Amino acid sequence: MPIPPSGSRSGAPLGVFDSGLGGLTVVRALRDRMPGESIVYLGDTARVPYGTRSKETVVKYALGCAKVLTNRGVKAIVVACNTVSAVALDILRIELDLPVLGVIEPGARAAALAAPDDIIGVLGTAGTIASGAYARAVAAVSTRAEVIGQAAPLLVPLVEEGWTDGDVPRLAVRRYLEPLLARGARVIVLGCTHYPLLRDLIEREAEALAGQPIRIVDSAHATADAVADFLQDRGAVARRIEPAQLDLLVTDLPKGFSDVASRFLGEAVLRVSQIDL
Amino acid sequence: MPIPPSGSRSGAPLGVFDSGLGGLTVVRALRDRMPGESIVYLGDTARVPYGTRSKETVVKYALGCAKVLTNRGVKAIVVACNTVSAVALDILRIELDLPVLGVIEPGARAAALAAPDDIIGVLGTAGTIASGAYARAVAAVSTRAEVIGQAAPLLVPLVEEGWTDGDVPRLAVRRYLEPLLARGARVIVLGCTHYPLLRDLIEREAEALAGQPIRIVDSAHATADAVADFLQDRGAVARRIEPAQLDLLVTDLPKGFSDVASRFLGEAVLRVSQIDL
Repeated sequence: MPIPPSGSRSGAPLGVFDSGLGGLTVVRALRDRMPGESIVYLGDTARVPYGTRSKETVVKYALGCAKVLTNRGVKAIVVACNTVSAVALDILRIELDLPVLGVIEPGARAAALAAPDDIIGVLGTAGTIASGAYARAVAAVSTRAEVIGQAAPLLVPLVEEGWTDGDVPRLAVRRYLEPLLARGARVIVLGCTHYPLLRDLIEREAEALAGQPIRIVDSAHATADAVADFLQDRGAVARRIEPAQLDLLVTDLPKGFSDVASRFLGEAVLRVSQIDL
Repeated sequence: MPIPPSGSRSGAPLGVFDSGLGGLTVVRALRDRMPGESIVYLGDTARVPYGTRSKETVVKYALGCAKVLTNRGVKAIVVACNTVSAVALDILRIELDLPVLGVIEPGARAAALAAPDDIIGVLGTAGTIASGAYARAVAAVSTRAEVIGQAAPLLVPLVEEGWTDGDVPRLAVRRYLEPLLARGARVIVLGCTHYPLLRDLIEREAEALAGQPIRIVDSAHATADAVADFLQDRGAVARRIEPAQLDLLVTDLPKGFSDVASRFLGEAVLRVSQIDL
């Protein structure tokens, strides 16, 4: 599909991509925040997860995903994947000729503003934590906040299995939270698009372990706010009368796709196409 | 690398592949059983896991892996991946001009022979269980044994996280075993190459839940026996004086690769090359 002429850019859809379906939590937040914006979402379900892969591989995959979306004429790309935001955002911004927004800067900013003197604990995939991206993003807005990270590789499979409550997720979440809280974290950033489905459990366990209120920062909502501000600043907000569309592209249609996708999106999944990458 | 002339086939290496590193448990069993055989192992670590993907995608990936090994002049291919063995073995046998052995037939045969009148419970990935491949393979050797399956998607990430003992794996294993044991399973097949690292825990929990001895069938060992018999029958056993080689090929080198690989292999990982697929 050719890129529409620049005069019609505000009516063009937002492009959103993630390694799999977790990024649909960001789509959900975007649709809550900006119901008028059409969205094309690409989930690279044939190659999920990215979180355990090398930087070179993540960059290669991310460029492939971004190309699919630019070919669809999107007005901006939201990288709804913490791993890609952590290791490939700079390269995407250099390589692409349109705005690219990630999930880490908004989440880090929200955490630093909420608790500028506190220790901020970040839960994420191995790739996100190893990158140190949250620490860099927090340092850009606060010189006092300290960031400590904890890789939590089991949380994604727990969410995908639908085990978001009960003993197994509770004990796994505890095991990941303990080192963060023991080091004094009073804010916990959900540094992976799957984690909003564990939000209540994480908050409950964190407060039980710490014996005091713990603030949970959900980067999906922070990102939706950042995208809304960005479009406003650029005069690129959609002005439409007809209802906004949501198109889902996936690179594989695994068993149980609709159930998992609906769980992340918070509504039934309607328009899905499978593409090759 | 060209395929060597047929006169030298017995000296050619065995080719083994898996979606990731779990298949190294099969390599370990092969090396224990046949120390004289050289092995080329390919782990498709850039596209792991296969267990949640569609049949079409698994077939495409498996053919790509097999091609790499045939280009290395292997004398036979061992598919050290239950998902590929379940959904793509027939196609590999049709497409390839050399013997292809899977992990499901040997495991199913060992289970059926050990307990011909019993109910056989199989733990595996979603793809393996949905395929019904174990039930078909058992039916080929026993008309009396009954097979029931349980998808256990969390066990692979637990093993990769190194959580093979403690409350989280114990409770997850229990949750997956309960429906099998409640329906009367007295044999449990470890239907995924990652599960041998959870063998002790699975055996302990199964016996605690059932209140009686439960037989655990490890398809890695059953496969090594089947490969040894096959080479013997064909006169294709390696007759070598120099120590057998083990070459590892991977499509991605994720963080912690050496630790995880050594855990599966039971020895330090020495010769590793990264290839593109």
